[in-house]
Amino acid sequence: MSFYDQLKFDSNGLIPAIIQDAATGRVLMMAWMNRASLEKTIETGLTHFWSRSRQKFWMKGETSGHVQRVKDIAFDCDGDTLLIQVEQVGAACHEGYRSCFYRSMTGRGEGFRITEPQLETPEQIYGKK
Amino acid sequence: MSFYDQLKFDSNGLIPAIIQDAATGRVLMMAWMNRASLEKTIETGLTHFWSRSRQKFWMKGETSGHVQRVKDIAFDCDGDTLLIQVEQVGAACHEGYRSCFYRSMTGRGEGFRITEPQLETPEQIYGKK
Repeated sequence: MSFYDQLKFDSNGLIPAIIQDAATGRVLMMAWMNRASLEKTIETGLTHFWSRSRQKFWMKGETSGHVQRVKDIAFDCDGDTLLIQVEQVGAACHEGYRSCFYRSMTGRGEGFRITEPQLETPEQIYGKK
Repeated sequence: MSFYDQLKFDSNGLIPAIIQDAATGRVLMMAWMNRASLEKTIETGLTHFWSRSRQKFWMKGETSGHVQRVKDIAFDCDGDTLLIQVEQVGAACHEGYRSCFYRSMTGRGEGFRITEPQLETPEQIYGKK
C-alpha cells in the first residue's frame, strides 16, 4: 500500500505539514500542501506548499533563498497531518527568526515574550519594498 | 497586548495545536482547539481540544490517563497555529505509540515504514470493545 493511500486531504484538497529542523528538533513552521505540492516536494527534495491566502503554489525559499531540504516525511495515525524533517537554510520565518514560533504566552494569557533572536530583518531577507 | 489578541481562529473558530514533548523534542500529535478548549488548557495546565469529527470538547487522556501537562504555549508569526510543549504521560497516540507520527514514507512514496515501537495496544489502553 502506497504512502499516498494513507493520506486524507481535507475538503479543499489540503493537508497541514509541520516542518521540523532535523538536526535540532525545533519546530520551524506549519504550512499547507495539496497533492501537487507534496509530489513536487518528494520529486525535488525541497518543500513546496499551497498558500491559502494567495491561492498559489510556492516553494519555500524561492525569494529568500531559505530553502528546506527534506530528510524524512512522516504522517499521523489519522493520515491527515504530515511531519517533515528538514535541513533549513537560514531563517524559516519571513520575520527573520529561525522558527515561526518565536513568541510564547506569558502568565495565563496576559501577554507574550520573544524567545529567540532575530537572525535578519525582513528588509535584509527580501530587500526594501 | 494579550496573547489572545495575537491569535486568528479559522472560519470554524478553530486553531491547530502542534503538541511537542518538552523533554525530547518529539512531535507527538496535532489537534484542534477552539477558544474554550484553549482557555481550559491554560486554566488547568492540561491539554483540551475540539474534535472536528465528533463535534465534541475533549481532554487528552480523559479515557486513557495519558494526559499532557503544559510547559509552554508558543504561536506562529501569522497567529494561526499553536506549538505547545508538554510533559506526556504514556503514549500520545490512541494506537499505542509514543507519537502519532510513527510512520514515515519510503522511496518516493511507494510505501512506508513504522519508525518507533508500539508501547501498548489500543486494547491495553482502552479495554476490549
